[in-house]
Amino acid sequence: MNITKPAIFPIPSELIEEFRAIVGGKYAVTNAADIAPYLCEDRDLFHGRSPLVLRPGSTAEVAAICKLATEHRIALVPQGGNTGLVGGQTPLTGEVVVSMLRMDKIRDVDVESNIMTCEAGVVLQVAQQRAADVDRLFPLSLGAEGSCTIGGNLSTNAGGTAALAYGMARDLALGLEVVLSDGRVLNALSKLKKDNTGYDLRNLFIGAEGTLGIITAASLRLVPKPRAIETAYVGLKSPSAALKLLSISRDEAAGALTSFELLADIAVDLSLRHGIDIRDPLQSKYPWYVLMELSSSRDDARDTLEAILTKGMEDGIVDDAVIAANRSQRQAFWKLRDEMSAAQKPEGGSIKHDISVPVAAVPAFIEEANAAVVKLIPGSRPVPFGHLGDGNIHYNVSQPVGGNGAEFLARWHDVNAVVFEIVLRMGGSISAEHGIGVLKRDELPAVKDKVAIELMRQIKAMLDPFGIMNPGKVL
Amino acid sequence: MNITKPAIFPIPSELIEEFRAIVGGKYAVTNAADIAPYLCEDRDLFHGRSPLVLRPGSTAEVAAICKLATEHRIALVPQGGNTGLVGGQTPLTGEVVVSMLRMDKIRDVDVESNIMTCEAGVVLQVAQQRAADVDRLFPLSLGAEGSCTIGGNLSTNAGGTAALAYGMARDLALGLEVVLSDGRVLNALSKLKKDNTGYDLRNLFIGAEGTLGIITAASLRLVPKPRAIETAYVGLKSPSAALKLLSISRDEAAGALTSFELLADIAVDLSLRHGIDIRDPLQSKYPWYVLMELSSSRDDARDTLEAILTKGMEDGIVDDAVIAANRSQRQAFWKLRDEMSAAQKPEGGSIKHDISVPVAAVPAFIEEANAAVVKLIPGSRPVPFGHLGDGNIHYNVSQPVGGNGAEFLARWHDVNAVVFEIVLRMGGSISAEHGIGVLKRDELPAVKDKVAIELMRQIKAMLDPFGIMNPGKVL
Repeated sequence: MNITKPAIFPIPSELIEEFRAIVGGKYAVTNAADIAPYLCEDRDLFHGRSPLVLRPGSTAEVAAICKLATEHRIALVPQGGNTGLVGGQTPLTGEVVVSMLRMDKIRDVDVESNIMTCEAGVVLQVAQQRAADVDRLFPLSLGAEGSCTIGGNLSTNAGGTAALAYGMARDLALGLEVVLSDGRVLNALSKLKKDNTGYDLRNLFIGAEGTLGIITAASLRLVPKPRAIETAYVGLKSPSAALKLLSISRDEAAGALTSFELLADIAVDLSLRHGIDIRDPLQSKYPWYVLMELSSSRDDARDTLEAILTKGMEDGIVDDAVIAANRSQRQAFWKLRDEMSAAQKPEGGSIKHDISVPVAAVPAFIEEANAAVVKLIPGSRPVPFGHLGDGNIHYNVSQPVGGNGAEFLARWHDVNAVVFEIVLRMGGSISAEHGIGVLKRDELPAVKDKVAIELMRQIKAMLDPFGIMNPGKVL
Repeated sequence: MNITKPAIFPIPSELIEEFRAIVGGKYAVTNAADIAPYLCEDRDLFHGRSPLVLRPGSTAEVAAICKLATEHRIALVPQGGNTGLVGGQTPLTGEVVVSMLRMDKIRDVDVESNIMTCEAGVVLQVAQQRAADVDRLFPLSLGAEGSCTIGGNLSTNAGGTAALAYGMARDLALGLEVVLSDGRVLNALSKLKKDNTGYDLRNLFIGAEGTLGIITAASLRLVPKPRAIETAYVGLKSPSAALKLLSISRDEAAGALTSFELLADIAVDLSLRHGIDIRDPLQSKYPWYVLMELSSSRDDARDTLEAILTKGMEDGIVDDAVIAANRSQRQAFWKLRDEMSAAQKPEGGSIKHDISVPVAAVPAFIEEANAAVVKLIPGSRPVPFGHLGDGNIHYNVSQPVGGNGAEFLARWHDVNAVVFEIVLRMGGSISAEHGIGVLKRDELPAVKDKVAIELMRQIKAMLDPFGIMNPGKVL
């Protein structure tokens, strides 16, 4: 496939003025200090450079930007809350950044139809709150919800802690408005649950990480707000025991089981050690923990949760468990879980994986991966945790205690290779929910079906013939 | 877009022999009498012609067929159970039929991961039964389930009576195996709930009605088998009342509400009049009825259903209701509903619509459409029924009593025009679950976003450059 290489840094100043004219003076950022926040991300893993950040306020402005960019072959990187974990939102080669944060209107809330139409720049937490205000739940929930945006959530097909019951971002979008690379606007902002009129275009753009077009708005599915939420923190012996508890939970609670997180003891220990205001919910230590949550429209969630835990104890699966007595205790349980990523930082270098395998294969995966990683780098510390109910484990590996961080991180790809070999052998995915971005781009062709890669390249060439949309990402 | 017109009838006999060699002698059908069943469908609405029906037994054979067809520009029509309602499965211009019925293996059932891998020719009811055998539910359910196939269900993105809770066929497929027009095989038979490695290809083929490739297998999502199913048949005054009951039901039952069907009195009357062994569940007549079902993993479904109906009565929404006392009564309720389509036939000509509008707009849609249709053809009888919970109404119109059937049917497009105008004004879809096929192909460009149509044409040209895959369907 021949994609014409788009123009990068420097962009002629007349062209910058043309872009500026589209969004209006103050929304075209050229000052280095003001641009800086758009160029790097929280973990300092990716550093970009850019001559220009555009902050459009409407779909028409985004369309005009894309049209002009196509005419002059200027590469664009769309950006939401800049919380992505694979570098997808970073202008690595001097692209123009299109920040969507000004497009933050909730255009419509249809309570009876359970649909909310949000612009791309609406912060996830704002969308959640707006749904709550009308007694509904917008169920997407993840660590970065205070700053990530709907557009970014959809472009990366975000997962999170409630995907078990409600699906990923993809499953929550009924329709999209998308600006194509040449400035055409696809208006597919459907408010319909069922619409079999032609090919599914929506799902092409969801999860495409901004490489096929810029999502400007979405119609989103709302669900009834649960009346009762019950959360338990469980100590157990092994991932196998956790898998059995998952099976019991599914039998008892079915769709009311909204979260089922598996936590290794070391993940909990690091969170307790480095997090602020984190307490251990249980008196004793266990090798593994499960954080599980039931959400119900009836008042029976507590009974169901107790029945699950009782059966788990009778079956010798659950060693200890505590149910959150109130909202603040529930939040404390979740804080322990939410701090897990950050808590690895003070321990030095951490090599991250976001893998999935068929749910039944998770125990075998963890066992094999632990053995392989420790054999590769003696003293390295696997810190597995994640969404067992989805077969999705954040299989992170912290450096040996007292070791050299840089030396350890230099082996990122060696560790990847060992872990990915096991993942692939088990029919798994090397990126369950974070996407490909630039971090995993070079690994993709080796792990993906050859025909799938060919089709992806064909689609990219079709929708972005000049290669101006987030070049170098995914493919 | 220029798609080379593929070759049709007659096909040189040497080529027929080449095709025969792929599937083996007896699986290449050329005898007119044996071909006949593949050429027409139950309602006698579409009649096709074909020189050859191929019955491949493996993905490799399907791939060889497509490769040969591409080389010689021979047009193919994939066919499953031949139950489609829009002519998508009929070889209207002499195409070779590729019948998938021999590919009927269930390749794998992973009970722990809740995933079943079926070949395209597996009959839906067989898949349901296999899931039930391992104490799981494969939730897709529709009238034709005794003969329709998984491949057809996915190619048309089938809906049905349980889509409210479990989604459409699209939502139940985790992965696909697809043979492309040139014979390449896309192996995307994922058993993963989460996999963010690149563009979503699966959803391109789901709902594409065989125009982009032939689905040969799918990995399907299973859910826990409900322990309790409770079904109520409710008499009420209006679609508005039904909508209010839906809202109460959602609040009380959330995800446990698995069906919510709205039935006009005339639809019930016709079913009672023309169906065999159908009884009226209620003593008195009401203008509208709701058939609703709750499925629960706990034993509380009955309590919940009673609470919903009690609240409905207190609020003056529900005029009468009966809960099925046992399984056979439940089946009797459903039989009344399932006979509704067939029961229109003895009444003469029936002009069918399968529309959706935002759920909240259903009452207004029915009111406006009824008035418009009766104004257009005095004496015509609207027979609306369908999946209120999804905003999907089978808005059928029976001819005036004693009128001329052919004359009435000649006004099919006039009636469509009147109905679709209302649908579109309300942001709805002219095909909620049946697809486009050939029946609605010519209407599509007028009702669909212009850019969406352009993208569909681009996708078609990319995946089927010689136009051999089910030509003349959808686009």
